[in-house]
Amino acid sequence: MENDFLEGKTQSSWNRRQFLKLGIAGLGITGAGIAYQTLKPQKSLPVRIPTVDSIEPTDGNISPMTILRDFDYGTVKSEKGRTIREFRVVASNSTIKLNSAVDFNTWNFNNRVPGPTLRATQGDRIRVVFLNQGGHSHSMHFHGVHPAEVDGVRPIRHGNAAIYEFDAEPFGVHLYHCHTEPITRHIGKGLYGMLIVDPPKPRPPADEMVLVMAGYDTNDDNKNEFYAFNGQPDYYRNHPIPIYQNQLVRLYVLNMIEFDVAATFHLHANFFQVYRTGRTLVPSEDSDVITMGTTERHILEFAYKYPGKYMFHPHQDAIAQSGCMGIFNVIAT
Amino acid sequence: MENDFLEGKTQSSWNRRQFLKLGIAGLGITGAGIAYQTLKPQKSLPVRIPTVDSIEPTDGNISPMTILRDFDYGTVKSEKGRTIREFRVVASNSTIKLNSAVDFNTWNFNNRVPGPTLRATQGDRIRVVFLNQGGHSHSMHFHGVHPAEVDGVRPIRHGNAAIYEFDAEPFGVHLYHCHTEPITRHIGKGLYGMLIVDPPKPRPPADEMVLVMAGYDTNDDNKNEFYAFNGQPDYYRNHPIPIYQNQLVRLYVLNMIEFDVAATFHLHANFFQVYRTGRTLVPSEDSDVITMGTTERHILEFAYKYPGKYMFHPHQDAIAQSGCMGIFNVIAT
Amino acid sequence: MENDFLEGKTQSSWNRRQFLKLGIAGLGITGAGIAYQTLKPQKSLPVRIPTVDSIEPTDGNISPMTILRDFDYGTVKSEKGRTIREFRVVASNSTIKLNSAVDFNTWNFNNRVPGPTLRATQGDRIRVVFLNQGGHSHSMHFHGVHPAEVDGVRPIRHGNAAIYEFDAEPFGVHLYHCHTEPITRHIGKGLYGMLIVDPPKPRPPADEMVLVMAGYDTNDDNKNEFYAFNGQPDYYRNHPIPIYQNQLVRLYVLNMIEFDVAATFHLHANFFQVYRTGRTLVPSEDSDVITMGTTERHILEFAYKYPGKYMFHPHQDAIAQSGCMGIFNVIAT
Repeated sequence: MENDFLEGKTQSSWNRRQFLKLGIAGLGITGAGIAYQTLKPQKSLPVRIPTVDSIEPTDGNISPMTILRDFDYGTVKSEKGRTIREFRVVASNSTIKLNSAVDFNTWNFNNRVPGPTLRATQGDRIRVVFLNQGGHSHSMHFHGVHPAEVDGVRPIRHGNAAIYEFDAEPFGVHLYHCHTEPITRHIGKGLYGMLIVDPPKPRPPADEMVLVMAGYDTNDDNKNEFYAFNGQPDYYRNHPIPIYQNQLVRLYVLNMIEFDVAATFHLHANFFQVYRTGRTLVPSEDSDVITMGTTERHILEFAYKYPGKYMFHPHQDAIAQSGCMGIFNVIAT
Repeated sequence: MENDFLEGKTQSSWNRRQFLKLGIAGLGITGAGIAYQTLKPQKSLPVRIPTVDSIEPTDGNISPMTILRDFDYGTVKSEKGRTIREFRVVASNSTIKLNSAVDFNTWNFNNRVPGPTLRATQGDRIRVVFLNQGGHSHSMHFHGVHPAEVDGVRPIRHGNAAIYEFDAEPFGVHLYHCHTEPITRHIGKGLYGMLIVDPPKPRPPADEMVLVMAGYDTNDDNKNEFYAFNGQPDYYRNHPIPIYQNQLVRLYVLNMIEFDVAATFHLHANFFQVYRTGRTLVPSEDSDVITMGTTERHILEFAYKYPGKYMFHPHQDAIAQSGCMGIFNVIAT
Repeated sequence: MENDFLEGKTQSSWNRRQFLKLGIAGLGITGAGIAYQTLKPQKSLPVRIPTVDSIEPTDGNISPMTILRDFDYGTVKSEKGRTIREFRVVASNSTIKLNSAVDFNTWNFNNRVPGPTLRATQGDRIRVVFLNQGGHSHSMHFHGVHPAEVDGVRPIRHGNAAIYEFDAEPFGVHLYHCHTEPITRHIGKGLYGMLIVDPPKPRPPADEMVLVMAGYDTNDDNKNEFYAFNGQPDYYRNHPIPIYQNQLVRLYVLNMIEFDVAATFHLHANFFQVYRTGRTLVPSEDSDVITMGTTERHILEFAYKYPGKYMFHPHQDAIAQSGCMGIFNVIAT
């Protein structure tokens, strides 16, 4: 199967007609308004998730509150006895409101910044069907282990598609991003997302969530004027994330900030256990602040003993003050 | 007791009269000239501390040589069989000389930059009586584990006071700083200090000292023009720290530099054992250079085999060249 | 012997005549054109090194392809039953081409940037005979453990020499650099190199190579306009490094970038095992991106399962885009 895979069928550039011939149904390639459904997690965990009153905004963007706990497990198929997870990702453009005065034209995956959180289990086969409707050449470069043919450094032209297919390994927190030059621009515009590869034996039940830190360079000066968790500056500051007291929270945190060489993640009034790059099943350390260079990512686990509101933010306070700031609202149980 | 604690008695803003009604004697609330005595460590360790010929400067500032080995264990009380450590901290202003030409108006805790090194043992109850005489709203936000009510993110107005009371946990190296916005400014002006929580079984005897790295933005350009260990640029370069050959040194190092996202700590001609965030009793690694994002802090242990003078500094040499530079003078034994 | 060493014979400044009196033959002190041979590794490992078609450039510089796998084990002597490794290092100047339009006058060690990769085994005695022909005062400051007398912070004037002699300890990846102020300038001009101290029991056989990340500030604005691995921007991007599929690669990676406080090292399509500061014999973690502050260095080990071309670069993409970019060409086996 892998031989077939390598024989020219992958990461070649296809035009729209070729793409359709693949027989991939339901892929909305006629515009940026991609509407296919994000699949929900197959497993139900004995974890209580607080009800969130979030309403998707009327501007067409996906709420950071939705992005937070949204995992895309793909369409599951079985081929020759093996689990295949097929993901569909479309590069397109959309406008995001950075504050009441500033609109920003993002380049993104699946009409959201960050792109969908793809999720598989180690040993699965991942098949990402990528279509570029972004108006510029783009690509999907994955972190993790895979052959050179699917490394995603070759630009895919507007209107064309590519398939990135590889084994899900190793387990851990990974990412993908456009690797078209200039990369600072393609990442800065919003072309990135997280890839979680679960270990064969699942981690213990927890309230799992994704936080992607990123910056926006709105005036092309190679500095960021705005920062955000999960796309929208100060969203979780204005809309605190509800979590339950004494229940384990598992954060998948990724730093995608360009131009600043690193940022920390700081949690108020608590300590978190660190699983570096998500590569271990036992933590290597605990702290309340951890330094993350661009594209570093970790699993951070914690539970709050006391109810109330607690901030989280990079402790580069200039970054926090410019939008990378959020609040957990710990609900008494 | 904890219930009592949470019932509105803490972190409320009080005016001077209410504050006095608490019956807290000795707190100098009539001006910035706070004079109450910093308590000395209660335990005497079989460690020899070299005599230091430092004279407190005539300008009213506290010498970095005093700050280095000065631990504030608070006033110890016993309530219902439990050890309470009561600390008194006053926000005020004072001028520090950055070099022969530049004076800088600091905002600080207890008339020194960094503020007092508060110290307790895990399981103690910490009670910080905070009075703001700084002319602006300020607060004390502690790193570590504690309830939301005492997280110190609520500004306390000038002339008012607050009590931050919480269990000393977990053991490790922590910190406190003003969390009033803009935080970069309040930290940059000098409103930070260290909190050490000792493990229940004390660490082995050592010559213990505190080094807080910080920057000064003297022209409000969101960059630092000066840097220092323990408040005063180049102090330990001009006044090397005496230590004894072959005796264990335990450094509590904290990075409070804003605007630069990280700095390293480098020790010349030696290797140190690293206890990340002071959270372990055995080291996790050794090196002679370690990266620390803003508010990261570690315990670093070492002994010098050979007498002589040895520099220590961030290896971001632009930072070292602007004042964050010191020297150990290893005395032959 | 160590007493002799400390009795004034080391790190004193010598003029040329005194230097010659030492009886050190073969040291080319008559100009920058140092020609003495770099000694080859004494041990032959059962590791296959791909043939490299690199030709030394005609401009007199040493090819980064040569620097990559070039280890200077020194001249081995035995004194009183102990292994002495004598290295000869000359500070001089030469011009390097940063791109087709920009020449840069480097200050360097042994006519190359980075300087020679010195290599010894823990317990050896290292004797570095340093001659300054660089036109400015320079020195060699080593990381690692050694007496103050040979710490290399004292400037050696042009035409003078010094001997830095010390025990090779502890095993790990270390470095040396000029410690003459302003250090940002002396390092930025190219005065640095790696020192590897092997553990007593050698590490397993591997295709070993050295990568030193550094920046060039070509317009003296305290920012870097160019970056490079092993001296020359984009060299390994244009000349991919051949390695064999499934064979262990051991990277000795050092970050010497000034002005940017940190950089990451990212490997495409693979994960590496991390040996922090080279101080362990078992890895502490694995990832595909690791943050390194200035002068941090690690051993990173990996093998590629699939043939093809794979990028490596800091994931501060602005740094990668300005020259710190390379490619491994994995040859099928």
